[in-house]
Formats: sequence, C-alpha cells, structure tokens
Amino acid sequence: MRILVVNPNTTASMTTTIGECARAVAGPGTLVEAVTSSAGPPSIESHYDEALSVPGILEAVARGESAGADGYVIACFGDPGLDAAREVAAGPVVGIAEAAMHTASLLGRGFSVVTTLARTRGRAWELAERYGMHRFCRGVHACDIPVLDLDRDPDAAKVITEACRDALEHDGSDALVLGCAGMADLCSRVSRELGVPVVDGVAAATLTVQSLITQGLSTGSRGEFASPPTKQYTGFLDRFGR
Amino acid sequence: MRILVVNPNTTASMTTTIGECARAVAGPGTLVEAVTSSAGPPSIESHYDEALSVPGILEAVARGESAGADGYVIACFGDPGLDAAREVAAGPVVGIAEAAMHTASLLGRGFSVVTTLARTRGRAWELAERYGMHRFCRGVHACDIPVLDLDRDPDAAKVITEACRDALEHDGSDALVLGCAGMADLCSRVSRELGVPVVDGVAAATLTVQSLITQGLSTGSRGEFASPPTKQYTGFLDRFGR
Amino acid sequence: MRILVVNPNTTASMTTTIGECARAVAGPGTLVEAVTSSAGPPSIESHYDEALSVPGILEAVARGESAGADGYVIACFGDPGLDAAREVAAGPVVGIAEAAMHTASLLGRGFSVVTTLARTRGRAWELAERYGMHRFCRGVHACDIPVLDLDRDPDAAKVITEACRDALEHDGSDALVLGCAGMADLCSRVSRELGVPVVDGVAAATLTVQSLITQGLSTGSRGEFASPPTKQYTGFLDRFGR
Amino acid sequence: MRILVVNPNTTASMTTTIGECARAVAGPGTLVEAVTSSAGPPSIESHYDEALSVPGILEAVARGESAGADGYVIACFGDPGLDAAREVAAGPVVGIAEAAMHTASLLGRGFSVVTTLARTRGRAWELAERYGMHRFCRGVHACDIPVLDLDRDPDAAKVITEACRDALEHDGSDALVLGCAGMADLCSRVSRELGVPVVDGVAAATLTVQSLITQGLSTGSRGEFASPPTKQYTGFLDRFGR
Amino acid sequence: MRILVVNPNTTASMTTTIGECARAVAGPGTLVEAVTSSAGPPSIESHYDEALSVPGILEAVARGESAGADGYVIACFGDPGLDAAREVAAGPVVGIAEAAMHTASLLGRGFSVVTTLARTRGRAWELAERYGMHRFCRGVHACDIPVLDLDRDPDAAKVITEACRDALEHDGSDALVLGCAGMADLCSRVSRELGVPVVDGVAAATLTVQSLITQGLSTGSRGEFASPPTKQYTGFLDRFGR
Amino acid sequence: MRILVVNPNTTASMTTTIGECARAVAGPGTLVEAVTSSAGPPSIESHYDEALSVPGILEAVARGESAGADGYVIACFGDPGLDAAREVAAGPVVGIAEAAMHTASLLGRGFSVVTTLARTRGRAWELAERYGMHRFCRGVHACDIPVLDLDRDPDAAKVITEACRDALEHDGSDALVLGCAGMADLCSRVSRELGVPVVDGVAAATLTVQSLITQGLSTGSRGEFASPPTKQYTGFLDRFGR
Repeated sequence: MRILVVNPNTTASMTTTIGECARAVAGPGTLVEAVTSSAGPPSIESHYDEALSVPGILEAVARGESAGADGYVIACFGDPGLDAAREVAAGPVVGIAEAAMHTASLLGRGFSVVTTLARTRGRAWELAERYGMHRFCRGVHACDIPVLDLDRDPDAAKVITEACRDALEHDGSDALVLGCAGMADLCSRVSRELGVPVVDGVAAATLTVQSLITQGLSTGSRGEFASPPTKQYTGFLDRFGR
Repeated sequence: MRILVVNPNTTASMTTTIGECARAVAGPGTLVEAVTSSAGPPSIESHYDEALSVPGILEAVARGESAGADGYVIACFGDPGLDAAREVAAGPVVGIAEAAMHTASLLGRGFSVVTTLARTRGRAWELAERYGMHRFCRGVHACDIPVLDLDRDPDAAKVITEACRDALEHDGSDALVLGCAGMADLCSRVSRELGVPVVDGVAAATLTVQSLITQGLSTGSRGEFASPPTKQYTGFLDRFGR
Repeated sequence: MRILVVNPNTTASMTTTIGECARAVAGPGTLVEAVTSSAGPPSIESHYDEALSVPGILEAVARGESAGADGYVIACFGDPGLDAAREVAAGPVVGIAEAAMHTASLLGRGFSVVTTLARTRGRAWELAERYGMHRFCRGVHACDIPVLDLDRDPDAAKVITEACRDALEHDGSDALVLGCAGMADLCSRVSRELGVPVVDGVAAATLTVQSLITQGLSTGSRGEFASPPTKQYTGFLDRFGR
Repeated sequence: MRILVVNPNTTASMTTTIGECARAVAGPGTLVEAVTSSAGPPSIESHYDEALSVPGILEAVARGESAGADGYVIACFGDPGLDAAREVAAGPVVGIAEAAMHTASLLGRGFSVVTTLARTRGRAWELAERYGMHRFCRGVHACDIPVLDLDRDPDAAKVITEACRDALEHDGSDALVLGCAGMADLCSRVSRELGVPVVDGVAAATLTVQSLITQGLSTGSRGEFASPPTKQYTGFLDRFGR
Repeated sequence: MRILVVNPNTTASMTTTIGECARAVAGPGTLVEAVTSSAGPPSIESHYDEALSVPGILEAVARGESAGADGYVIACFGDPGLDAAREVAAGPVVGIAEAAMHTASLLGRGFSVVTTLARTRGRAWELAERYGMHRFCRGVHACDIPVLDLDRDPDAAKVITEACRDALEHDGSDALVLGCAGMADLCSRVSRELGVPVVDGVAAATLTVQSLITQGLSTGSRGEFASPPTKQYTGFLDRFGR
Repeated sequence: MRILVVNPNTTASMTTTIGECARAVAGPGTLVEAVTSSAGPPSIESHYDEALSVPGILEAVARGESAGADGYVIACFGDPGLDAAREVAAGPVVGIAEAAMHTASLLGRGFSVVTTLARTRGRAWELAERYGMHRFCRGVHACDIPVLDLDRDPDAAKVITEACRDALEHDGSDALVLGCAGMADLCSRVSRELGVPVVDGVAAATLTVQSLITQGLSTGSRGEFASPPTKQYTGFLDRFGR
C-alpha cells in the first residue's frame, strides 16, 4: 500500500518532518512517500497562500496517480484543494485538519485547536463546520508563531505548550488538536506535560487513509466527485488540461 | 495490541460474524477478540432492547480492562453505552455507527444508511446528529428484516441490495452505510453491485480503534469522562459497584 | 389519575423529598406515588451510574403498568431511560430535565442551569440539544456538591444560591433551572433571594404529565415508540424478557 | 386562579368554541375567561392580519391586568404579540402554537402540523424554529379551508381528517398538531380516526399556563421582558401610552 | 425611482436625520422621501413599542402605494412589520437591521452590533437568526443610551465609540453595525476612530432597495406574500380593512 | 467609481455577456470593466476547474489594484477565490452566488437555484451554508446543460425555463436564482414566463459592490483579511510572490 503525503508548501524541511511523523504511525505494509509542492508559497498563512498552494497539490496528486499511489494526505491544516483532489484521485484523499478533528471528536465531548497565526483561525472554524466538527470544537487558539519559525524558534515548544494549557483551561476541553503540519513532532511532549490526548493531523490523516485503503474505500464517483470533465487549459496553467 | 469487540446482544453466531469482519481488516500486530454479552436481549430492535444491552456491555468492558484490552468496539448500530464505556475503559472505545458515519463522511458530500427495522431509524438520526454527521446523512432507510433473520432469510442479501439501490437513487448519495452489525459481511457484495463505496461499521470501528491505539490516544479523562465515582450498587445490579 | 414518580437511584430519602415536591403541585384529582429504584447506584453522577439506573427505572415502569399508572415522571436530571420507558408505558412519560427546560423556555429568552458535579454538565447540554432547548440554554453551571450531600451539607443551600447568582450574572438569563431532583425543595428560596423564576424539574414534570393525561395524550405508538418486539432475555437481566 | 384566553380576532363565535375547549381541560380551581378582541380582523390569515391583531391583544391583556388575571393564553396559531404581552403581564403568557408544539414534542420523535391556508405555513415554521421545535416538526400542511369556514363548511372535519392522514403518511410522524384555534373541537375525532395523539393548542396552552401559575412561575422581568419604559403614545394608538 | 423611508416612531427630528442619511447615499435618479409614523410611540425600546409601531408603518406603506412609491425602507433596527409590509407593497421592502447585517456579512467573517438599551439585544439576535446572519454576528452590545437621548446627550458619540471599541476587542470582529436608526450619522466618525468598516442600516437599506428596484425585483407574490385576503376590520383599527 | 468584473474562465464571449449584464444595472457614475481570466479552464464545472480558476482571478485582482479598481465582482457561481481576493483587494469583493443568494433572501421565505450540471449542486449548497442562506435555499436544481452550451444550444432557454418551473413547483419557493454567470441574460425571460422574481448573480453582485463603494465600505483588514504576509513564491506560480 502506497500513501502519498503532500506538503502543500515549498519548504522541503517541513516535508521531512511530516514524512517522519507519517511513517512513525503507518502499518508494516504501508509505504509512505512525502513530497514537497513544486510551486507556490514557502508556508501557508493566508487565504491567498492557501489558494495558491492548490495547483501544486493537484500536480502532486496527478503524479501520484501516474505512479500508482493508493491514497493521499494533504498536509496543511487548511486542507487546501481537498475537493478537487478527490475528483482527480482514484483512491481516498484526507486532509490533516479533517482527520485531526474527526479523531479528536472520538476522545470526549469537546476539543481545542492550537494553531499558528491568529489570522488562520477563521479557516479552522470554517473547516470544523464543514466536517460537522463544529459541535466538538470549543476554541481555536493562536500561538502567534509563524509557520517557518516553528522549527527555528527555540522557545516554540514552550510557547505552544503554554497556549495549549490556556486553551484547555479556557475551553474545558477533553482533548487538543495541533493545528499545523509543522507542529506534528510536538504531540507527545504536549500530551505528557498537560495530561490530555493531543492529536496531530499528519498521524491521524495517514492512519485514516490507511484504514480507508484497507477497507477498499474511496471517494464515491457517481456524482459530484466524478472525474472532472476533460478540457483544455490555457496560460501558465496549461499543464492542468486533462 | 488487543482490541475487544463487544457484541451487545446475546446471539453467539452474530459474534462470530462480527469477529471475522473485524479480523479481516485488523493489522498484523492486532489481536481481535470478539465477545458475546452475558445478559440481555438476543437482538437489539428497540430503545428497550438497547437500554438493557448496556449492563452486559459494561460488564464485558470491565472484564476487558482486567484482561488488558487496549481498546474496544461496541458492535451494535445504536452505539449503546458508549459514554459509560468511555468512563470505564483506559483505552479508546468506538461505536460502529460512530465509526461508519465518520468514515462515510470522508467519501463524498452525503451518505445513506440502510438499516433493519423502520423503528430503529430515529436512533440512527439521533446518533448522526450527536456525531456531527447529520449534515452528511441524507437518509436512513429500513429493509424491514429483523436482525436475527439477516442470516436466516435467503433473500436478505437481495432485499438489502435493493433497499440500498433505492436509497442511493432517492438521496443522491456518494456512499452507503450498512446500519447493523449483522450486515457486516454484505459490504463488498453491495458495493460491487451498485458501484459505490459501502461502509461496514464493524470494519470501520476496528480500524478506528486500532488507529487511536497506534497514536497513543484515548478518551480524555480530566473532566466528564474521568472514572466514575466509587459507590456501592444494590439489587440485581450489585456486581456493578466499583 | 395516578402518576408514578420514579426516583432512578436507590436512596429512599431522596424519593421522599421528590414525592413531596410532586404532591405539592399536583391537582386535587391526581394521586402521586413516588418509588425508589430497586437496583443500581445510590446516586447518579456519571454516564456509568446513569446507564445502570435504567434497568431499575424500566422495572418500576413495568410495575406501574401492572398497577394501572396513568403516566410517569423520571426524576433524575439526566432523564435516563426516557425512550425505552416511552415504548413500554401506555401513558405519557416525562423526564425532569425535559420538563424543566421546556418550562424555563416559556419564561424569557434564555435560562441557566445549575447542577451538582461539573462532570454532569455535558449530559445536560446533550439533553438541551435533544429537546430543542439548546437555543434557550445559556449556561450549565456546577455547584460541585455531590448529590447525596445536598441534604447533609448545611451550606448546600447557600452554595447553590451563590452558584445561581453567578450563573445569572454570567449568562444574563431570564430564568434558572435547578439541575438535580435533590434540589427540588430549594426553588422558592433561590427564587425569593434572586428575584427570578426558578424551575424545579420534579414539579414541572409532574404537572406536564398531569396535563398530558388530562388531554388524553400519550406517546405515539405507530412507529419508533411502539411496544418493543417480544423476546427472551438471558443472564442477570432475564426478568426483562417480554 | 384566573386564566384569560384571548381570541385575537373579532369573531365572537370562535371565542365561544375556544373558551369551551379551554374550560374542558382546566382544573377545578381554575376560572377560564375567554374574550374577543375589540379591534382588528375577523380572522387571521396573513402577516397583515396578524400584525394588526396585536393591538387588540395588548388591550385585552391590559384589561386582564386590571381585573386580576393570573395568566394568559393567546389563542391564534401565529402566536401574535407574545413578546409584547409578556412585557406587560405580571403572570405567564403562552401562545397556542408554542404550547401545542412543546406538547407534541413530548409524544415521540416528530410531529406534523395541519393548518388552514397554505400561506400561513411559513409563520408556523418560523415559530417552530423560535421555540426550538424545528427538529420535531416534520411538516406543516394546509387543508386550504379559510378560518371562518371551519365552522360553516359541512365537509371541514372530513377534509381536515384527510389532510391529517396524508400528513402522517408523508412525514412518518408520531403525533399531530391542529394549527388553528378554530380546529380546537376536532382533536378527539381526528385522534380516534387515525389512531395517533392529536394536540389542540388551546387545551395545551390553557394547561401550560395553569401549570406555570401552580408553580408560581412567570416571565422573568430582570432584562428583556421588564415592563416597557413609560411613554406617551400618539394618534389612533394614544390609548396605549403607559 | 421613489423610495419611501418610514420612521416607525413618531419623533419627527429622527425622521429628518434618517432622511438625510438615506439621501446621502441614494443614486442621482432616486427620490428619497422620509415619513414619520402617524401613530404610536415616540421611540421603540421594547417589544411593546415595536408591536405598536406596526399599524403606523402599515398605514405609511398603504399611503406610499397610493402615491406610487417603488420601494420601502423600515427604519427601526427591530425591523417591525416587515412581513406584513411585504404583503401590502408591490415593490421591495427592506428593514435596516436586515440590510445592515447582510452588508456587514460581506466585509469579513464576523461583525459586532452596538445598539441602545440592553433590553433590545434579544430582538437583534432573533433577527440575526431569521436572516441567516447569526453565524456572522459575534455579539450584540448595548451603549445604554435611550433612543431619544442619542441626539441630546453631548457624550453620546463618545460613549458609543467606546462601546464599539470594546465590542471589537471582545468579539474579534471584522466590522461593526450600529443598531439604531438614530445612530445613522455616527458611522463615519466611529469608522475613522476605530479603523474598521461601520455599517449604518439606513444607508445600507436605502441602497439595497434601490438595487432591488434597479433589477426589477420585488417580493414574490405567489404564496406566503401574496396580497392579504380582503376583509373588514373593526374597532379603532377599522381603517385597515381592505 | 470603477468596478472590475472578473470572468474566472477563459472564454471571452462569456465575458462579453457578463459585462453587458453588469453595465445594464450599474449607476450613471459607475464604470464597469469586464476581464477574462488569463489562465485556466474555459468553463468551470468541477471542483478541479474551480480551484484552478483561482490563480487567474487573483492575477486579475492584482492588476485591478494597480489600475485603481474600487471593487470587484467574481463572476462564477462557485465564488472561487473569494477569501483570497478579499485579502488582496483594498476595495470590496463580492461573488455572484453570494450576491444572488443574499438578494433572493429579501424576496420571500425561500428561493430555488437552477444551475448547469448536477455535479455543481454540492458547491452551491456549501456556499448557501457559508453565507447563512441555507435556511432560504429550498433546492438546487440542474438543467444539465454544460456551461459553454448555454449560448450554443438553441433549446437552452426553454430547458432552463422548464427546470425553473419544476423547481418552483417542487420547492414552493418565492423566488428563483439562476446559478451560472452564463445565464445572466435569461433572467427577465424566465421571470416573465413564470411570474416570479428571478435573480441574476452578475447584476446582483455589481449592484452590491456599487452599494458598498458608495457607503465607503470594504473588507475589514484588522484580522483574518489583512494583506497576506509578504513571501517569495516559486515554480510556475512565482509571479504571485508579493
């Protein structure tokens, strides 16, 4: 079984971390390949960044299809391009916000999300609603560390842990979700310090895709998610014609 | 890793089928044990049956805790006793309706449920809402076959397949959910005939629990789902004192 | 007219209080009988306790049916076993959370609930949603007094009154609901001190059942709430076969 | 105990029927007085009619306050003027749609409403949502008989019964609500013919008000529903200054 | 194009302000006429005031119809009589709360409302829900200045600006709505001081009606909003018969 | 005042039609410029097409900013790139689905949408929910004519009119929305034939943007919709770095 984990930004070091987190949970028969987007922003911190990460994701999925991938993880907490990728891929596609929220909803009555910049909270709420997880999501909190500083800032782990502690206290939640692929390696630390289950979307999504493939399940293709109609694309996007 | 799959009714033949379906998807390192409830109704077809299946479930979970189970599946589509089991178990507990609906929501914009008796539809809707899956659930349909006839009735597979076809057409759904543990072995047949993904709750829940255990996740225990306060029980339920 | 008020726990002194509160509001032609559950926990403070109070409730209702009861009140704020009891009883069945919330919604735009232990708040919210009262319920607050201490703790009334005052201020509510059958006798005191309407579920449910009986109304029995299918029960629950 | 039942239209014969239905369920110590509005439309079949029935209702309530009424029923299924009347009255005020829907929600998972003209269905849905009863209301159906023909049309009872039968079948409901004060006397007939509980708002509201008064409960007056600020009114509404 | 802006209270100085604000945004071909209600309260600060402002509004609309008005603005933030006016008017009718909330929802993910007296907040929330704007409305805040003091109180502008600042900080909103027609002239000042878009309902509603008329759109009249059935009115409302 | 209407697909003839419809309603002082996307699909009929139309839209908006546009219309019924465009533009940005649904909600209790291909209905529902218009949207219906055939197919107008008639009858709606920019010129014909208000998103959005500009309103920029953080883009999207 081959799962392609797509890092929608162009920062290769994040891809490495993401790949490691995915492989750490994948089953023995599962091959996890992590790829970096070939075009777009180095990190995703606005609707603008997110929208412009989608072509790179779709290109990665198209390559995955040619190479025989069985399923896909979109490893950005905004779950960019999820619907489009589902039309294009034969196998299942799961976003990390989607998987993390579904997973956290199984751990109690409510969870809190801790994410990077405050401006991304609106998108997290929008996704929570879309996935039906609004009723479990008690708060989306920002630690105010830019994505690419998560690695560089020596205080990042501490700041995030404190933001998580505050979130728990404020929301009275049963579980936490870390709202950025770049936080994937912090889960166990935060969980140990705060004594609550902490969900990382990369791990959750990898296992969700693996489970779907095991069950032989993929996106239904009889309606909205059938293959897109064939048509010629023009301009700097001409490569996307099908 | 040990997963205990609890059949909340007292019919051992159903436990056998359920155990087989769970084992068919479990990973190589996962030991699946299926147990039959020691007390209560032979099948669950009313709120009365469901309520009275809960003591048997909680007894099975208590035994699982003593025996070192890492997680639990409650294998009845009404997800009886889920909250109580989560208080008692150290590891994760997942209901088959819960897992099936979450899974189906990843396969498109909407799914249809096909269940046994019409009178159980209300409970399925209630669970859909509780899990946030209401927005994906486009219809709950009955095939009008009693639970224990699913095995005996030679026409059962055909009747269920037709009910699924009607549900798909009526609801315009992307995926199907079979709404009874006793239908677990029909998934691939229905999927093949109708050309849509069909989710079986037993498989979905087994893999969901396995994924949670792999991630080291369990029910949060700092609030609502902490261990129940110790107290003495009386009467024919005295065994449940803790 | 005979109304059976079922105390779902096994503490007889609470049954006495509950019975008195019910009789204090019942009409001249109404005979109120309060009964203590014959099996289960002495108080209900967890999902575990609540689930295991249901067999005792159903036994009491079955006896009520034999003895000619016209309607039932389930006197625990978690409204345990309500759906099952409705299938079994010929007459109406009302839970005290249900009746209290409906009643409070008639008194303004929003109400606050003050209950016992913090861990029971999740269930209160779940019921509020189920009954459609979510939109009126502005907060569920705990006074952190265990159920059986409500009677014993000399400061209980004061602590609860203060919790109610805080709730009112925080939520800006028009009315209060006391969220435990064991608080039934505090209503008038709290109302007098705080100058707001305070609803006790036992009184509200008793009058609601009385009103339903007066109107000749009972649970509809043409679908989901028809009598449960007859079947043989086994193990320590064999008495529940029908 | 004195309950004032206000007929918001100016048709005295409807007031007579309404009063009889209210008295038929009121307890021995309850005095029911039914009054006809002194101004406005002879029947309420549009938003225009409904809006213009409110001054007459408020006048009747003001008179009730002077005369010592303990509570009020507003006997039109659009529940006109409910919020305003609650500001003005010292005792509780209940609308017949409000009471009927609350009551019907206690009788199963869903109810259907059968009302007069199709154009009034929107208001019924709006009220269902306002009261939190949207989740229980499965359909609002019209029998297409104008209000004042309910009495005159010899086929009215038959037409309404058939509309009820169709509604039940279409909606799969557990109970029915008759959506007009002018249908109050048809309840038992429809219930007998169709074998389901049928709720009449006049009876339901009368008993609801009686129950509130028995519990010493009235609209909370510390915020939104405090007495309206005193001010001078002008023009043909000058009588409403306070 | 003629737009009639109806001030639902009887205070002519407010009508002057409202008319100026409407004219300030209307297009060159649009004639705005502002009228004062001929009957009812001098300001609207309770459900009672609001209900009793409706006859005056409907009278103004009826006159507008005779005089050839093409559309109507109801210039009170409670949007009184909106449905009734839509039945009576041939052209579009828009309330200022309705227009303001719709407009604000286009300016970001959430807005805050700042209104006059605290007791009017419930109505604002109710309207937000009715218009589907509940999801955008993050808070309704009161400045506690009575309507008629908005003009007279020399500190009014300052108090309102501070209430707006607090609302923004508390709610984290993208935009503000001023919740009273009497605040229409404060928009630009608050916007300048706080650096956020501030919506005035009078301007928003005037432009919304103008846009509807330009598109040739009016209330659909094939169902609920058809002309009210003709009937004779009696008492002090006899002028409203049609 | 300059409004830029962006046609997100690359078909210039559609841009011409869209521009004409926009100009037909714009005020005398409003300059409407319609532009065709420079890259992407010739029509938008899948999530894939829609996602890949966004870079072209953002490029057009960036050019508009340089050229001094005061506001923007995104003229595809999927409202692609709306959030991203709002971050980038100084002035207001409105989608045609957004404007059409808001507008239709002012015309009665419910509207029906008639769109092109059945597979696009899911997106329309998603937008309806996002805008809070879900409660007004009674149905989304497909006429099954591909976007580029709307112009070429001689029967298109007739087929669409019939789909509209069916939608009205099925949904009992007060108004219609035509769910594709390519249908903009059919509004008056359908309205005339069916006797209901019919909303075209291009006209509605143009007037909405014009109204916002007139009021001096634009997207709030203090939080989620502030300018995107500056960063370098790579690959075939390098032109999007800021």
